[in-house]
Amino acid sequence: MTDNISRAKILSDALPNIQQYKDKVIVVKYGGNAMTDDSLKDAVMSDIVLLSLIGIRIVLVHGGGPEINEMLHKIGKESRFVNGLRYTDNETMDIVQMSLCGKVNKDLVSLLGLHGGEGIGLCGLDGGLLTAEQLSDDLGLVGKITKVNPRPIVTALENGYIPVISTVAGGENGEAFNINADTAAAAIAYSMKAENLILMTDTIGLLKDIDDKDSLIHTVRLSGVPLLKSDGVIKGGMLPKVDCCVEAVRRGVKKANIIDGRLPHSILIELLTNEGAGTMFIQ
Amino acid sequence: MTDNISRAKILSDALPNIQQYKDKVIVVKYGGNAMTDDSLKDAVMSDIVLLSLIGIRIVLVHGGGPEINEMLHKIGKESRFVNGLRYTDNETMDIVQMSLCGKVNKDLVSLLGLHGGEGIGLCGLDGGLLTAEQLSDDLGLVGKITKVNPRPIVTALENGYIPVISTVAGGENGEAFNINADTAAAAIAYSMKAENLILMTDTIGLLKDIDDKDSLIHTVRLSGVPLLKSDGVIKGGMLPKVDCCVEAVRRGVKKANIIDGRLPHSILIELLTNEGAGTMFIQ
Amino acid sequence: MTDNISRAKILSDALPNIQQYKDKVIVVKYGGNAMTDDSLKDAVMSDIVLLSLIGIRIVLVHGGGPEINEMLHKIGKESRFVNGLRYTDNETMDIVQMSLCGKVNKDLVSLLGLHGGEGIGLCGLDGGLLTAEQLSDDLGLVGKITKVNPRPIVTALENGYIPVISTVAGGENGEAFNINADTAAAAIAYSMKAENLILMTDTIGLLKDIDDKDSLIHTVRLSGVPLLKSDGVIKGGMLPKVDCCVEAVRRGVKKANIIDGRLPHSILIELLTNEGAGTMFIQ
Amino acid sequence: MTDNISRAKILSDALPNIQQYKDKVIVVKYGGNAMTDDSLKDAVMSDIVLLSLIGIRIVLVHGGGPEINEMLHKIGKESRFVNGLRYTDNETMDIVQMSLCGKVNKDLVSLLGLHGGEGIGLCGLDGGLLTAEQLSDDLGLVGKITKVNPRPIVTALENGYIPVISTVAGGENGEAFNINADTAAAAIAYSMKAENLILMTDTIGLLKDIDDKDSLIHTVRLSGVPLLKSDGVIKGGMLPKVDCCVEAVRRGVKKANIIDGRLPHSILIELLTNEGAGTMFIQ
Amino acid sequence: MTDNISRAKILSDALPNIQQYKDKVIVVKYGGNAMTDDSLKDAVMSDIVLLSLIGIRIVLVHGGGPEINEMLHKIGKESRFVNGLRYTDNETMDIVQMSLCGKVNKDLVSLLGLHGGEGIGLCGLDGGLLTAEQLSDDLGLVGKITKVNPRPIVTALENGYIPVISTVAGGENGEAFNINADTAAAAIAYSMKAENLILMTDTIGLLKDIDDKDSLIHTVRLSGVPLLKSDGVIKGGMLPKVDCCVEAVRRGVKKANIIDGRLPHSILIELLTNEGAGTMFIQ
Amino acid sequence: MTDNISRAKILSDALPNIQQYKDKVIVVKYGGNAMTDDSLKDAVMSDIVLLSLIGIRIVLVHGGGPEINEMLHKIGKESRFVNGLRYTDNETMDIVQMSLCGKVNKDLVSLLGLHGGEGIGLCGLDGGLLTAEQLSDDLGLVGKITKVNPRPIVTALENGYIPVISTVAGGENGEAFNINADTAAAAIAYSMKAENLILMTDTIGLLKDIDDKDSLIHTVRLSGVPLLKSDGVIKGGMLPKVDCCVEAVRRGVKKANIIDGRLPHSILIELLTNEGAGTMFIQ
Repeated sequence: MTDNISRAKILSDALPNIQQYKDKVIVVKYGGNAMTDDSLKDAVMSDIVLLSLIGIRIVLVHGGGPEINEMLHKIGKESRFVNGLRYTDNETMDIVQMSLCGKVNKDLVSLLGLHGGEGIGLCGLDGGLLTAEQLSDDLGLVGKITKVNPRPIVTALENGYIPVISTVAGGENGEAFNINADTAAAAIAYSMKAENLILMTDTIGLLKDIDDKDSLIHTVRLSGVPLLKSDGVIKGGMLPKVDCCVEAVRRGVKKANIIDGRLPHSILIELLTNEGAGTMFIQ
Repeated sequence: MTDNISRAKILSDALPNIQQYKDKVIVVKYGGNAMTDDSLKDAVMSDIVLLSLIGIRIVLVHGGGPEINEMLHKIGKESRFVNGLRYTDNETMDIVQMSLCGKVNKDLVSLLGLHGGEGIGLCGLDGGLLTAEQLSDDLGLVGKITKVNPRPIVTALENGYIPVISTVAGGENGEAFNINADTAAAAIAYSMKAENLILMTDTIGLLKDIDDKDSLIHTVRLSGVPLLKSDGVIKGGMLPKVDCCVEAVRRGVKKANIIDGRLPHSILIELLTNEGAGTMFIQ
Repeated sequence: MTDNISRAKILSDALPNIQQYKDKVIVVKYGGNAMTDDSLKDAVMSDIVLLSLIGIRIVLVHGGGPEINEMLHKIGKESRFVNGLRYTDNETMDIVQMSLCGKVNKDLVSLLGLHGGEGIGLCGLDGGLLTAEQLSDDLGLVGKITKVNPRPIVTALENGYIPVISTVAGGENGEAFNINADTAAAAIAYSMKAENLILMTDTIGLLKDIDDKDSLIHTVRLSGVPLLKSDGVIKGGMLPKVDCCVEAVRRGVKKANIIDGRLPHSILIELLTNEGAGTMFIQ
Repeated sequence: MTDNISRAKILSDALPNIQQYKDKVIVVKYGGNAMTDDSLKDAVMSDIVLLSLIGIRIVLVHGGGPEINEMLHKIGKESRFVNGLRYTDNETMDIVQMSLCGKVNKDLVSLLGLHGGEGIGLCGLDGGLLTAEQLSDDLGLVGKITKVNPRPIVTALENGYIPVISTVAGGENGEAFNINADTAAAAIAYSMKAENLILMTDTIGLLKDIDDKDSLIHTVRLSGVPLLKSDGVIKGGMLPKVDCCVEAVRRGVKKANIIDGRLPHSILIELLTNEGAGTMFIQ
Repeated sequence: MTDNISRAKILSDALPNIQQYKDKVIVVKYGGNAMTDDSLKDAVMSDIVLLSLIGIRIVLVHGGGPEINEMLHKIGKESRFVNGLRYTDNETMDIVQMSLCGKVNKDLVSLLGLHGGEGIGLCGLDGGLLTAEQLSDDLGLVGKITKVNPRPIVTALENGYIPVISTVAGGENGEAFNINADTAAAAIAYSMKAENLILMTDTIGLLKDIDDKDSLIHTVRLSGVPLLKSDGVIKGGMLPKVDCCVEAVRRGVKKANIIDGRLPHSILIELLTNEGAGTMFIQ
Repeated sequence: MTDNISRAKILSDALPNIQQYKDKVIVVKYGGNAMTDDSLKDAVMSDIVLLSLIGIRIVLVHGGGPEINEMLHKIGKESRFVNGLRYTDNETMDIVQMSLCGKVNKDLVSLLGLHGGEGIGLCGLDGGLLTAEQLSDDLGLVGKITKVNPRPIVTALENGYIPVISTVAGGENGEAFNINADTAAAAIAYSMKAENLILMTDTIGLLKDIDDKDSLIHTVRLSGVPLLKSDGVIKGGMLPKVDCCVEAVRRGVKKANIIDGRLPHSILIELLTNEGAGTMFIQ
């Protein structure tokens, strides 16, 4: 019973956090280890269902690099790289669309169902959700979002469904574009005036000293970002992720979090405990 | 961080329980130590707000014996007892009504507010919620419920308020009757087809062996009650409480629980952990 | 039949008045003789139910001085007075809350029920209706309203209930404050953009010549108030009541009326006949 | 002021009657003197607006014999009579339709507007309200109702309009039929499960002794009608009116009243005073 | 089957037009040959029902000169003319009202019913739809619109009815005014922010060369109207119709069309084919 | 202009058909040539958008055999056949899911968008739309529908979206099953009480004499099916399609049509012209 008392106490302690997020939109970009490790995956799905159930309007945006690579490999497609970015020709785009919208997306919806939630799998083509144009001639069908129409997401949320979103967008002439998932999540977040944008990564967060795990920076104001860049604290793969966070907060999202997807239940830790789980960007 | 992982795990474990109670009506009869000990009181209020917040339709029914006694004492009123029950004359009834509806009820509403909830304090007179007739000539204005009209409670719930209810009922000619709070809670529960009726007591629950705290009976089927009575397991003050549970379950409430109000967060333990916190009566 | 024709004619004559007040909010401060004389009380309750029935959104705010005094007397509590105002210590505040919210309020709700109406008894603590702070250190728990949240009243009205309101307000730390009922009625009236604020008093209204009952002033513009004060027409107990009227009209209430509660059906006379029943304040 | 007190008392006395009819449908067949005398006409319009305003769902069905006759006379049309009933040829039907739907109906709507009400003038052709077939070959376009579709009336009522109805019905092939207004009012009343059907006539009601105005029969049960017919109390022009009342009550209307339209405000007398104004038929 | 393929192709070609008008308000002034020729009449009613069915909010405003003249003739009424306009005395106004509101209007409603639509026949008196004042002392009861209250039309549309409107308006004192139907249609169109105002005439439209049917002017900008007037292209009976179009477009209607009512299905041609059917006025 | 008149006449002729299908659910199984020929594909998409626009509740269910085969070929997967049916192992199922849900489905949604419609691409996994179990051990992940939950489809329709559905279903343990598209369309049709089930095929319909294109059987009653089977009129690939039609009609679908998808606009021909386009099955 003692154990139950502590358990109940912990539940009780979550009250102020739940009050804070009730009825708010939270956009989670799901990717990395949290998506490849089955046990982490289960924990994330369970967290999403729980948060949805207690009245938080969760939008799940996912990537799917490994699945795309696996399919490209299977069909023996070799990729051409331009400045380190993969050139997306028509065939590659078909594989991207099939892998993301057909496999990863629907598998996540199915998994949410096993945890008692009801997901609806959408991509940017559904209901005109994401419109894009070509980012650069050099990259083929890699797109840049020009418009977000959140009505399909809102319809899903208002009918009690958890929207799960693949980041394939539609062009003006009906072509499909491949969109970076972090960027898409940020755009969806600010177009819905979300309370939080949460990017799940395979890092602890921003570290003052890259070699010292205890040097985690918990909170960064937008005004502090340039210095962190020039100091080299924000660099490499973190650069585009931080830019997404900055853009989201600059355009109205209250908080943007880079959290460690390798921790089980990191979303719950971020949202329902007092310490949080990574680095938070605020105005 | 490790600690946060366990905390998140515990929150996550509550998922199936929350799914089970989502949108369900749960009537809590609040009384005893949980109402006189300030720290327990805070824990109960916090639990009620939490459960309400995550989508459970909580109805709080309260007693208030100590407050009534204190006021009767203050005005120097001596009570006449009939078969161990206090005869309720007009002056006593006024004190009952003032103490319950004016003091205890509104103080609870105020306390819910401090925990971030919005309560509405009602009694059986409001909106014709409880109608009663005299229980017995010998007891004066002690009443027996003849009709429950749950519309005032439903109106409060549908507008996001937590209904807090004093068990004073109205008679046909406008008189007020004093109603036993356990009985009123049971009547409200079955008139609202509640999922649970929870009676907070100052006991662990039903014990097979009164001297052995580990002999708690976790679940009792209605069919098993007569034997437990004849065996003397159900006796004394437990008798009327068990009868309320039996009546509620017999008339459609899914589960009736006698829980130990002396444990902090006993309501959360009962509803959101797997072990429960006392004795449960089912069909 | 002739008699019925005159009766029907009188009903018919009320048409323009009913048209004028249809769907409007009217806040009635109920007190004085109209509340202590049983026959007047019955007439007021009947009027309130009638007005509610024909589509006027009636809000009943009540005082309860005599009941408070009776209880203070019963418990042998002696009051300390500061500049003629009673110092309200904790024990006194408890008695105020019990008498107003527990006794007077619920008895009025019960009486409305006998006349076929459905009342909901609220106080300023319910749903955060009235927030207050200390008026002055010298007066203890006498409060000054800092915020009115009319949602609990609106919820009651929209569900067909007549809200009956005790003027006890909540402080920031959960304490209760005693609020002057005229002031509270005025604050509720302007926060709800009421059409009328009606203060029931034990006077005919403002008299030009205090000794001449026929010198009633029917209408006063706000701009005329200072002169009436300097002329001594507004003085004594009328001063605070007139100030409530002035404040209400200044902040958007269309009309504020001081009417003679000693006349049976004075509210109907004011609202549904052409002559009105006392003194009216307008912009 | 004394006078105002009596006036208010009379308004107050109407409370139970208003409570009884609140939200109920009452179908009034308007005709006879009440329609030709301008002062009576004003009183009726005022009553209709008042009743509508206090929440009674009033449906006004009108005749218009005098106006039809005047137009037939103007165009020099001579009528052929069959068993005392006018044969309605196409030209006559056109005049009926023009007079009723174009003149009488819209003039009533206009008059309601002058009294502050909002009327919508409909006939049986609008929205398929009344469908009919030929009553008899001998009578041309005189019709018998085969179907009532109350949706156009309900739409008007739910949007706050007072429906005013001319009793011209549509046939299967688009032809128009002339319908007796009493019969149509009865059919509308039972198809809407009305509380009352009120037929305004130029008589006091049913008199036991035709020469004794004090011998008015206030209430007749359906079972008593045959005897009143065989005794000759119901005869002549009263016969079809009584048959309408009987049919309406038999098919679910609670009360059918034959009232004296020559009395000003006879509808108010019937509905809002205790004595009523004519003869009432009940189950 | 080949034929069916072409038929289906034609239906399919209408898609962009239907998309353009979906949920938009279109006010059609119906008159002239299209109203006197039975086969054209059937085609118009069928078009109206079709357009209503596919989600266009059609408002049908009609004239009725021939019917008025026929009735005036029947009663032997001679008209006095002032500057070529008929003086409308009370008797004439009665005939106008009867013919329009009672005969033409309800016959159209009936005809819509035969084509499977549900019409509601309204005039400017219903629900205060059109308010007017005297246009000139010299013309008697000819009126000028001072206010349009579209609520009765909107109520009909929202309940799935096709509103059919006679252009008789109410004056401040309850008198009725005769209103030019083109003018009324224009006023209704701009008060409802209509997409189109369509005036059905007995002309092809504006012809550059009156003798050359192929010289039809398809589109006129408001800025081009003065020149067309000074050039004599707009003259005679076209002048007031063009003025209605100009006024409507100036006050917010997107397009105003003068179409040839002598062509069967001219409304469908205008709205659902690419070429249109007459002259269109735009900003 | 003459041409426009014929065009308008054809639109007008569609009125009774549109009236018949307004607000009804029509499930279209899309496949075969109509899906591989780009021009036919455009025509189908345009038809679907048109029908949706005029108020018909269209549900588009699609197959995608060629796309699946192409992908299997690309990855060099060889299929094992059991009694002529392909054994669906996990890898094959992944390809099925990717091709159908990721490629075919989203491309159709995109194409609908180009024609001005708003599609939402769903599969049986979304919102628990289709639940299935294994059809036979011999076939691997080929499934048999055990439950249809139409809420995701209804949500899409009620929000103005055209639901496009891939027939992949979810099993109890989260596995995905491949479902025959005709069967799934039939199950969705009867679970939604559709008016029509339309199966697009590459045949004219049922021919009495297989060599005589003019021997098309237009209508078949369920009772006539056994004879047509024993006579060999229904055979081969037609057998399972007819069985789907029979099952749908037997369980409440009004009409099931096998139409010739090779004709442009065959859906419009079937629904909006009088002759229809293939063979119809009715009760």
